[in-house]
Amino acid sequence: MKNFFSVADAENLETLVQDALALKANPYAHETLGKHRTLGLVFLNPSLRTRLSTQKAATNLGMTVMVMNMDKDGWALETQDGVVMNGTTVEHIREAAAVMGEYCDILGLRSFPSLKDKEADYTEDLFKKFVKYCGVPVVSLESATRHPLQSLTDLITITEYKKVAKPKVVLAWAPHVKALPQAVPNSFSEWMCAAQKDGMVDFTIAHPEGYELSTEFTDGATISHDLEGSLADADFVYVKNWSSFNDYGKVYPVEENWMMDNQKLALTNDAKVMHCLPVRRDLELSSQILDGPNSLVIKEASNRVLAAQVVLKNILEKLEK
Amino acid sequence: MKNFFSVADAENLETLVQDALALKANPYAHETLGKHRTLGLVFLNPSLRTRLSTQKAATNLGMTVMVMNMDKDGWALETQDGVVMNGTTVEHIREAAAVMGEYCDILGLRSFPSLKDKEADYTEDLFKKFVKYCGVPVVSLESATRHPLQSLTDLITITEYKKVAKPKVVLAWAPHVKALPQAVPNSFSEWMCAAQKDGMVDFTIAHPEGYELSTEFTDGATISHDLEGSLADADFVYVKNWSSFNDYGKVYPVEENWMMDNQKLALTNDAKVMHCLPVRRDLELSSQILDGPNSLVIKEASNRVLAAQVVLKNILEKLEK
Amino acid sequence: MKNFFSVADAENLETLVQDALALKANPYAHETLGKHRTLGLVFLNPSLRTRLSTQKAATNLGMTVMVMNMDKDGWALETQDGVVMNGTTVEHIREAAAVMGEYCDILGLRSFPSLKDKEADYTEDLFKKFVKYCGVPVVSLESATRHPLQSLTDLITITEYKKVAKPKVVLAWAPHVKALPQAVPNSFSEWMCAAQKDGMVDFTIAHPEGYELSTEFTDGATISHDLEGSLADADFVYVKNWSSFNDYGKVYPVEENWMMDNQKLALTNDAKVMHCLPVRRDLELSSQILDGPNSLVIKEASNRVLAAQVVLKNILEKLEK
Repeated sequence: MKNFFSVADAENLETLVQDALALKANPYAHETLGKHRTLGLVFLNPSLRTRLSTQKAATNLGMTVMVMNMDKDGWALETQDGVVMNGTTVEHIREAAAVMGEYCDILGLRSFPSLKDKEADYTEDLFKKFVKYCGVPVVSLESATRHPLQSLTDLITITEYKKVAKPKVVLAWAPHVKALPQAVPNSFSEWMCAAQKDGMVDFTIAHPEGYELSTEFTDGATISHDLEGSLADADFVYVKNWSSFNDYGKVYPVEENWMMDNQKLALTNDAKVMHCLPVRRDLELSSQILDGPNSLVIKEASNRVLAAQVVLKNILEKLEK
Repeated sequence: MKNFFSVADAENLETLVQDALALKANPYAHETLGKHRTLGLVFLNPSLRTRLSTQKAATNLGMTVMVMNMDKDGWALETQDGVVMNGTTVEHIREAAAVMGEYCDILGLRSFPSLKDKEADYTEDLFKKFVKYCGVPVVSLESATRHPLQSLTDLITITEYKKVAKPKVVLAWAPHVKALPQAVPNSFSEWMCAAQKDGMVDFTIAHPEGYELSTEFTDGATISHDLEGSLADADFVYVKNWSSFNDYGKVYPVEENWMMDNQKLALTNDAKVMHCLPVRRDLELSSQILDGPNSLVIKEASNRVLAAQVVLKNILEKLEK
Repeated sequence: MKNFFSVADAENLETLVQDALALKANPYAHETLGKHRTLGLVFLNPSLRTRLSTQKAATNLGMTVMVMNMDKDGWALETQDGVVMNGTTVEHIREAAAVMGEYCDILGLRSFPSLKDKEADYTEDLFKKFVKYCGVPVVSLESATRHPLQSLTDLITITEYKKVAKPKVVLAWAPHVKALPQAVPNSFSEWMCAAQKDGMVDFTIAHPEGYELSTEFTDGATISHDLEGSLADADFVYVKNWSSFNDYGKVYPVEENWMMDNQKLALTNDAKVMHCLPVRRDLELSSQILDGPNSLVIKEASNRVLAAQVVLKNILEKLEK
């Protein structure tokens, strides 16, 4: 593994997941691997779980961690070439990324989409330029279109808690008050489609009309506008809101009740319920489910350490050579 | 010690203070105790002394420290149950605390009172919910009604610098330009009353009318509105402003001069003068005292490391079992 | 070395530079020197390179690093004596510095000038008071009038890349959209003048009329308003904008083209081009140069670790005694 940006960076899903679960039993088995290695975590947007879990994962591997908060206002980066920089951007990504690469052996980068400029977001302009100019391996801490550490976590968690060899996994759209990126559902779908190809899961996406994800992430998935029908026999329900991809960043009024609750849970095969957090209680997902025995959300968040650690371990092992 | 929230969490004051003073002589005596243990410091409000001293204390014990700044605007936590989260709060404390507990062996939490909702503040709603949901020991880095690491520091400092077996300690209200919480004086009073019961000090509180503290913190204290009379024979004067508890969060005009200065110091038994800092010079306390030989404020701040370290050490030892 | 504030703190420039370059070959040679030593980095202003490179340097020496962001609004420090603190400043530098000195063995401080009060800026009031009251060695992370870690880096980089024994170094003023401090050019000039005295370089400053630096920093330098003439035979060109010192903090319109570009580069002895970063592309310096073989800006930024590490090493060695 050189960078970690999408499911394409995972050589073998099953192996990666089993390696991660092995770290759960023995988190300090590789605590000298990261000696004299520095991880730089660069946040262009806020983070709680990703920040803490990645910091912990790196520490478990013996790495030094440096955190850099660069909110878009405070240290605005220029990403376009050929621009005379006489405006509000204070540094070009060519220099900023290259300099951070000089100080760190591995970099992590978090950057949310604009939700306004679909092309810039979906070409992953900022992330790709950062990779190009920093000169060291880069781990996505969520980019414009993907959140791969979250999706790897989700696959680890499904593998850990599954009761059948090939569980039915449903990604279920849910309401929200804000227009949210498609990064988490894109990424979850991309990973589940890959896992489906490897025979690990059976994958369905349920969302209201107008909330179609970009087809580049959904190849092989069963896609439905019928939530209740989709939930039949589900072993895992992954609840998540997102805004429209086609009418980019827009939010349509949805008349039907898409909040996940006990009534809908009753339609499933006693499914485990997942969410990447933060979750809006009783809007996306009912408190009853969150506080009940079917919720995996905390265990899922806990597994974020495993995902980050197995990824950093893989990258460090390549550096070692 | 499981959590550290109030004086009730200290099994034996004398022992705790002596253990702390032993750390001063040998700060690295337990530097492997915290190996593979992570302390998470969660700040809902700003901090200087508490942040640095607790970070240093944890490092002295070999712990890894992760700091999380969550100001109330940036990552607003919902604390009420049964609320449909379609407003400005982005995450419920049930999830936020539980997740942080997954990544850390011990958590520290700083949260100031609203000074508006007396009941929510004085039931310590936020702090108690955080403890309930995070699932790991929690150290208060100052809560709505108490600042126990400061008060333990103060008792350590009094013990270190006392010239008589049972010194007279006076908590003296002082002027300020802002309405400040009662947390520091509540907590100091609570600890001094307990120390008085153990025969360690003789404790008096002096404040203008209208600035009565809640009686749950002052049991056994001599309370007076006569500052000059209270200062007679004082060995330690602890200067601090606070707003009204009864007329909650309000500030009354005070005609008399309550600023601690050399004239008032002359009434004492050459008392040492203390303050938790930050201090408003020549408003709460005169520059002459702060820059003179009777001031303990810097040594007191220095001892914050001892308080944090002895508390973390106690909690770690329980974890070890 | 006790503190690190200006070139006067460097006992011998040649030795300091050679020590730094030795660290490049063997960055962990002194990794136990900083054991049980804490470096506190205090930022009153934003920082990217300085923060990360100093953190890394300290870690390479085995130190613990604590970072404290105190922007001027959030934790406003009072620096004047004799002031009744009933306004917006929340803590006096006497207490703030002293307390941080209790928690740290070495402190780093970054503080920009006001660009309004020339006397306060040029007497380095804040920095000097911080040194006076904190009681431990202080490393400047850029102060009102100097940026010595940058200048030491620059001398290291010039020494590393020079092709002749005594290269010609030109500090060339360049356009910008904002009024910038004189700290970097003052400091660069101060270090180059000292290096010139030691026979290490030949130093010229080129700037438009009205942009004269304070003469206390330029003793021995050749000063010219003719950029193209100055560039003849130059081995290194150091590009930087600054505002007026005489008409303090002001910016004059400059008719001529002072941006460094390939046409101007052709006048030099195939000079290496330097800049402290962040740089405004195609305003201060052309993209062609920045992306071409003559640019040293990334290597220069990389060398920031060496400068910080050799300074911390020197100070730690003195602490050891």
